[in-house]
Amino acid sequence: MSNEIPAATALPTVNAYIYPRGGLDVLSRDEVARLKDASSGGMHDLLRRCALAVLTSGSASDDPRAAQELYPDFDIQVLQQDRGIRIELVNAPGMAFVDGQIIRGVAELLFAVVRDLAYTAIELGPEYATDLESSSGITSAVFGLLRNARLLQPGDPNLVVCWGGHSINRGEYDYTKLVGYELGLRGMDICTGCGPGAMKGPMKGANVAHAKQRQYPARYIGITEPGIIAAESPNPIVNQLVIMPDIEKRLESFVRLGHGIIVFPGGVGTAEEILYLLGLLLQEENREIPFPFILTGPTASAPYFQQIDQFIRLTLGDEAAARYEIIVADPEQVARRMAAGIRKVKEYRVAHKDSFYFNWSMTIPLDLQRPFVPNHEAMAALDLHHGRKPHELAADLRRAFSGIVAGNVKEDGLRRVEEFGPFRINGDRDIMQSLDALLRAFVEQRRMKISGDYKPCYEVVA
Amino acid sequence: MSNEIPAATALPTVNAYIYPRGGLDVLSRDEVARLKDASSGGMHDLLRRCALAVLTSGSASDDPRAAQELYPDFDIQVLQQDRGIRIELVNAPGMAFVDGQIIRGVAELLFAVVRDLAYTAIELGPEYATDLESSSGITSAVFGLLRNARLLQPGDPNLVVCWGGHSINRGEYDYTKLVGYELGLRGMDICTGCGPGAMKGPMKGANVAHAKQRQYPARYIGITEPGIIAAESPNPIVNQLVIMPDIEKRLESFVRLGHGIIVFPGGVGTAEEILYLLGLLLQEENREIPFPFILTGPTASAPYFQQIDQFIRLTLGDEAAARYEIIVADPEQVARRMAAGIRKVKEYRVAHKDSFYFNWSMTIPLDLQRPFVPNHEAMAALDLHHGRKPHELAADLRRAFSGIVAGNVKEDGLRRVEEFGPFRINGDRDIMQSLDALLRAFVEQRRMKISGDYKPCYEVVA
Amino acid sequence: MSNEIPAATALPTVNAYIYPRGGLDVLSRDEVARLKDASSGGMHDLLRRCALAVLTSGSASDDPRAAQELYPDFDIQVLQQDRGIRIELVNAPGMAFVDGQIIRGVAELLFAVVRDLAYTAIELGPEYATDLESSSGITSAVFGLLRNARLLQPGDPNLVVCWGGHSINRGEYDYTKLVGYELGLRGMDICTGCGPGAMKGPMKGANVAHAKQRQYPARYIGITEPGIIAAESPNPIVNQLVIMPDIEKRLESFVRLGHGIIVFPGGVGTAEEILYLLGLLLQEENREIPFPFILTGPTASAPYFQQIDQFIRLTLGDEAAARYEIIVADPEQVARRMAAGIRKVKEYRVAHKDSFYFNWSMTIPLDLQRPFVPNHEAMAALDLHHGRKPHELAADLRRAFSGIVAGNVKEDGLRRVEEFGPFRINGDRDIMQSLDALLRAFVEQRRMKISGDYKPCYEVVA
Amino acid sequence: MSNEIPAATALPTVNAYIYPRGGLDVLSRDEVARLKDASSGGMHDLLRRCALAVLTSGSASDDPRAAQELYPDFDIQVLQQDRGIRIELVNAPGMAFVDGQIIRGVAELLFAVVRDLAYTAIELGPEYATDLESSSGITSAVFGLLRNARLLQPGDPNLVVCWGGHSINRGEYDYTKLVGYELGLRGMDICTGCGPGAMKGPMKGANVAHAKQRQYPARYIGITEPGIIAAESPNPIVNQLVIMPDIEKRLESFVRLGHGIIVFPGGVGTAEEILYLLGLLLQEENREIPFPFILTGPTASAPYFQQIDQFIRLTLGDEAAARYEIIVADPEQVARRMAAGIRKVKEYRVAHKDSFYFNWSMTIPLDLQRPFVPNHEAMAALDLHHGRKPHELAADLRRAFSGIVAGNVKEDGLRRVEEFGPFRINGDRDIMQSLDALLRAFVEQRRMKISGDYKPCYEVVA
Repeated sequence: MSNEIPAATALPTVNAYIYPRGGLDVLSRDEVARLKDASSGGMHDLLRRCALAVLTSGSASDDPRAAQELYPDFDIQVLQQDRGIRIELVNAPGMAFVDGQIIRGVAELLFAVVRDLAYTAIELGPEYATDLESSSGITSAVFGLLRNARLLQPGDPNLVVCWGGHSINRGEYDYTKLVGYELGLRGMDICTGCGPGAMKGPMKGANVAHAKQRQYPARYIGITEPGIIAAESPNPIVNQLVIMPDIEKRLESFVRLGHGIIVFPGGVGTAEEILYLLGLLLQEENREIPFPFILTGPTASAPYFQQIDQFIRLTLGDEAAARYEIIVADPEQVARRMAAGIRKVKEYRVAHKDSFYFNWSMTIPLDLQRPFVPNHEAMAALDLHHGRKPHELAADLRRAFSGIVAGNVKEDGLRRVEEFGPFRINGDRDIMQSLDALLRAFVEQRRMKISGDYKPCYEVVA
Repeated sequence: MSNEIPAATALPTVNAYIYPRGGLDVLSRDEVARLKDASSGGMHDLLRRCALAVLTSGSASDDPRAAQELYPDFDIQVLQQDRGIRIELVNAPGMAFVDGQIIRGVAELLFAVVRDLAYTAIELGPEYATDLESSSGITSAVFGLLRNARLLQPGDPNLVVCWGGHSINRGEYDYTKLVGYELGLRGMDICTGCGPGAMKGPMKGANVAHAKQRQYPARYIGITEPGIIAAESPNPIVNQLVIMPDIEKRLESFVRLGHGIIVFPGGVGTAEEILYLLGLLLQEENREIPFPFILTGPTASAPYFQQIDQFIRLTLGDEAAARYEIIVADPEQVARRMAAGIRKVKEYRVAHKDSFYFNWSMTIPLDLQRPFVPNHEAMAALDLHHGRKPHELAADLRRAFSGIVAGNVKEDGLRRVEEFGPFRINGDRDIMQSLDALLRAFVEQRRMKISGDYKPCYEVVA
Repeated sequence: MSNEIPAATALPTVNAYIYPRGGLDVLSRDEVARLKDASSGGMHDLLRRCALAVLTSGSASDDPRAAQELYPDFDIQVLQQDRGIRIELVNAPGMAFVDGQIIRGVAELLFAVVRDLAYTAIELGPEYATDLESSSGITSAVFGLLRNARLLQPGDPNLVVCWGGHSINRGEYDYTKLVGYELGLRGMDICTGCGPGAMKGPMKGANVAHAKQRQYPARYIGITEPGIIAAESPNPIVNQLVIMPDIEKRLESFVRLGHGIIVFPGGVGTAEEILYLLGLLLQEENREIPFPFILTGPTASAPYFQQIDQFIRLTLGDEAAARYEIIVADPEQVARRMAAGIRKVKEYRVAHKDSFYFNWSMTIPLDLQRPFVPNHEAMAALDLHHGRKPHELAADLRRAFSGIVAGNVKEDGLRRVEEFGPFRINGDRDIMQSLDALLRAFVEQRRMKISGDYKPCYEVVA
Repeated sequence: MSNEIPAATALPTVNAYIYPRGGLDVLSRDEVARLKDASSGGMHDLLRRCALAVLTSGSASDDPRAAQELYPDFDIQVLQQDRGIRIELVNAPGMAFVDGQIIRGVAELLFAVVRDLAYTAIELGPEYATDLESSSGITSAVFGLLRNARLLQPGDPNLVVCWGGHSINRGEYDYTKLVGYELGLRGMDICTGCGPGAMKGPMKGANVAHAKQRQYPARYIGITEPGIIAAESPNPIVNQLVIMPDIEKRLESFVRLGHGIIVFPGGVGTAEEILYLLGLLLQEENREIPFPFILTGPTASAPYFQQIDQFIRLTLGDEAAARYEIIVADPEQVARRMAAGIRKVKEYRVAHKDSFYFNWSMTIPLDLQRPFVPNHEAMAALDLHHGRKPHELAADLRRAFSGIVAGNVKEDGLRRVEEFGPFRINGDRDIMQSLDALLRAFVEQRRMKISGDYKPCYEVVA
């Protein structure tokens, strides 16, 4: 969109009252009061940041601070009246308005922000903390949020989740559009993390295809979380937005909601996501569950997936590699394989009486639902040896990966390594070397940005 | 309908599995489990009786025991599967099926029964008892049930509540159809207690008018409660059914949901409802709230309303009588007055920013939200003297009325009077005489059925 | 309806301008001018009468003169403006209006009248006379009128034509409602001649069933012609009305449009219709075409069909009787058999690539498309002997029937017989005796109303 | 689109049967037969070329010969069956299909081609030639074609026609997208000549805006004619296509259908269109008719409109220039002015009872409805002197323009000038000099492509 909409050259702002619809329009007095309290209390700063993100949806910039700095006086209040709530916007970005009227799609995203933050504050607040300590409790919370956002709809399986980097190169971006186009031609809807790059391309391509196939209304689902939305303003094609409370619930949402996953080239985060999904699919309980999982990119990006594939075969074995398919430079083939895979998903769910709109069958163990904090203790606890159960090894590899990235580029991790020395990781030498090679390749391909030369931040403990 | 659908001459039954839709189709595993538990536990007998009532909707008979005796082996189970719930019907009345397929409208009513009983069991269960001790807590519960039943919909005010007897005579019944027809021609929807007689006639008339005005889909809302539904099987025109937990919440629903009320001739119950509504409208806080309230019937029924009117003027004063309008034998005028009244309701709600779909402004005091049990102690506590605040006197008159009826015709009341002697009521003599005259008139008009001669079951204590 | 809507006690009238929709809303200047000319010229009186019929739709009376006498000053004009046409109503029956606004369904029927009379005047006018001299030309005209009326819609076959008398007794009328109800429960739509009696009952029953099955919008098609509409005002359930130019095109429309035909008891006209349909179905070319054809009535009406059946077996043979099925007092069975028959119709059309919405395959010979005028010459030309091809004999029997009825009850026929003596009919004695017996039975059952005793108006010429 | 859909690298083709919908689905046997005859007779080659154009919609190439050469064996047949028509495609471009199924939007455009060519062949054939000799007859034909294409729809005026060149530069193309985006944000629909460049950009921009405003379904109307469609394959956003029989009827369609016109930079053809529209608007009868007319482009294109403006002021006077507005580099302002203009159009039509969907009020004289063939005789008949009525001078200027362009670049014109010498034009010297300056500027800006230096092909006769 950035090339289609003029970047704000000046900084016009608008004050406006908005009356919500769609799920926020029939609230009890109590609910309105609690929503008002939550939005003016602890939740207020979060609400303000997320609201600003959707009000600048489609902006040329993807720098989160930019929006905050460009609109320092922006504020949002939730007001109470018997008729329901009213949202007051003060000094809101003019780009969200046309002749003083808010753009309808932007208003919908804004309601989604209020709705989800309120749900999280009210229904998943501290008093329900115990509910969130079990795996099934967390899954219930994910279900509740998604249902409240009206994302759980009966209908044939056709939802493809697309993962990949948000700052990919032009060739890669164009490729994601082509894949989205071929998916859309075959009636598939798109779900992504709702930012730019690989999160936007497939939606753009599918949008053109859906128009050609007269598929209305198509679904362009964005699943985000508060830490991400401010940095990655939802692209304006998204017509169903949900804000999950944290990264783990966001990942679970992708897996429960989607009927298949396509991974485009990305950075180290993308590699972590691949390991997360393998960690799930290699679980004993999930072995029989069909789940199409395709890695794809243009010819120039082939090395990215080859390196990952080599790493997985070495560490997790060929059986792990059998859960995904790598397709290079063939968008049609990607779409055809995905369609075929989703047909199997449908058959399986019919046979097992599972719902189409939520993948209850998939087992997600509690330790993949909980956040991983990469400190020296946690890193020392990893166990990267051959012979472990593949899904456990996959989970630990993902953690190792996460920690090493932190040690190289994240403020927190850099500081820890400086203070306490390199992480000490228990692992077989060949695994660790392979990991090292992979990271070096990412640096070379500029998929992991470091200052200066790459220097391992860990020592191997045999 | 009874003359249009053949009465079941034999007793064919059907076993079937039903897959719910509309609000019951997207449930979490937890919810399904709780619903299954509730429906096989304490709620089961209630569920069975209500389900049988809707499965015999449109039956010629309105004798609740008949259905139970005709289908003694009927049973219903709620089964759990990942995909959601499944309802198993065993030996269900064949009249609800066509060539083995359940009639879609009947299925919708059946889902409504499961939905509302489950909501009551789960969301208003013992653990929420404290919430239900305050007036606003009760109102919130009413709101929650109605919203969950999808009855709270934005849209212009047009919902007319019709009250009146379920066993009125043919002339009165035909009159209710004519009124419904004139309401329907003017775009109004109908809400009733959802049984036969005055609860069915207006819907039938409106249905014809809506068809002529091509008004699709029109709303025919039935509000019932477990003690009533079994006796008064929902008439088949009802397309939105809600089962409130008790009579007081049912009455509150009528007042919160409807934009005006028409009262047709009925029995003593109808007189009680008139006093209930007057008790509300005479509250200081409600004085300014417009609420069209029309008593109407054919010429032959004029005496019924004249007597009630006289009684009200004597006891509560002309100011009370100013809150309603009596129209005799003029359906068009009824509809025109109601339409005009509802226009005022709309103006008021716009001006006061109240919602169209729920009348938050109306104050309903806690003692009108709580059930009244007519024992000697309660009857002795009544205070029927001139000079009290009209709304308090109206409320006590309603209770006196209720108790005297019980003492004359209800098993419980008859037994109490036999055991402890007549009720002792404190009241001015003229008020008590007027009450007595009203009751005698009802007996004469066969609107209150007693065995033998009418004999007051109370003594007046000056 | 007559018992649901109050008969006009006074004669309020309304003047109004109506702006057409649905097919009349996008007209060229030329078309508007031609329509205006036609409606103010030769077509005007016809337009006035038909318009009055639909404006009194639902009236208690079915006496055509009544409407003309009750509203002697009624007039209708079609006015021209660039935006399209405007219809001016002067002194129109108040019953078609609610608070000055025309009832939407009545307005739709009114537009249908203007639309069809205009189409006939403009597209089937004298300059196209030659087109209407061939069988295919007539069929094209029927197709054109039905398409212009938007009755030709893709969709699964489900249209049941119901024939029968317009002044049947209460038991028969109630039975037609029950059959309509069972048809409606099974998803079938109804097409009739759109007047009262057997033309209204099935629609009423189906309407209730469609509501219970939530089938919106259902189709209630009325096919009439100018000579009939004035006498048989369309019942208000009709939501698609077409006015064919004459009786033969009306009959052809039933056969081309319907997927099956049910015949209820009626008068002699109904017997004629049965012979018309047999005349078609016994054509060599139509032998293989499935066409469900059911005669049905309550137990008390069984003799009507037994006598017709006997007559057909004697004259046309058992093979003719094999084309229909007689079901007595079993509405469910009627509906089930009709549904099964229509499934065969669908299979046949799929196999023969015939359309679902128009029965092109059925051969209708030109002499069944042309009117029959029963004078002495035409009656003498009949050939009612055994040994003829059944379909030819059926056609001649229908004509004999038509002529004898005319000679007994119609002004024209009575006069002819008085002047020229009895008709002279060539026929085998047993056939003529059987015909005579059938007519006597109709007289006894009061299905043919004559003054004085029945006396044959014909002589048999061996 | 060209950068989003992969260009066909190989030449896969598909054979398929297509069953039409939307206007072609309910045809009589006669109509099917006539359509079949027309499509296999004289109309066949035209049908083949137009069909190929829509089947390659979205192709990177806009060279008409390319499609013909790439798919030499493509053929299309219209087949007859009772059910309606069937279209057979042989060796059709694979790009129109997905896994063997035709893309639904492409199929719709294909049906439009068959529908419009058939309508022209059948309804505007030689037997109706006299009808097409009067101005009102031609307008009726235009109306009939547009209505048959279902383009005449009631609804508020919101249709903006966009004119401009098909091979504009990147900056100009991006600008047309921005203008389309701003129009779409304000709820306006787009109508263009349906090819690339300025005919595609506004639709692309509006499409994004409509999605953001959740405006479904928006209208993207393409109006083309047989000589153009082959060269300018409809862009794939077009969802309503109509093929007019010739350029003059196409121009009339724009004026009758659109509620305002925006002109982007283009070549000499665009200048001619501006003169055509001025020729209309300066008619005495059209003086009072509001018709927003905006010339706009990016800053770099400002000279194009300045030169045209100067030329118009000199030749037709300031009054002519008052009928349009020039806006440079301000898409928002363009959209706001257009919206304001269309509000006036609506007021005018309401006041004058003109339809919203067809501009009957605009007078188009017969000589602007007839084609102009620029031979020496016709050129000599021009009268380019000051003092003439502006609308007549505008029409002659357009013709002069057309002839001079032909004499410089079109095969036909070049040959004529070579054979008979320069055209001899009667005109005032300053007008002719101004015309000359304008043409030289176009050559410089590469908007008129000539080989060698520019040399006037005419002499002025004072």
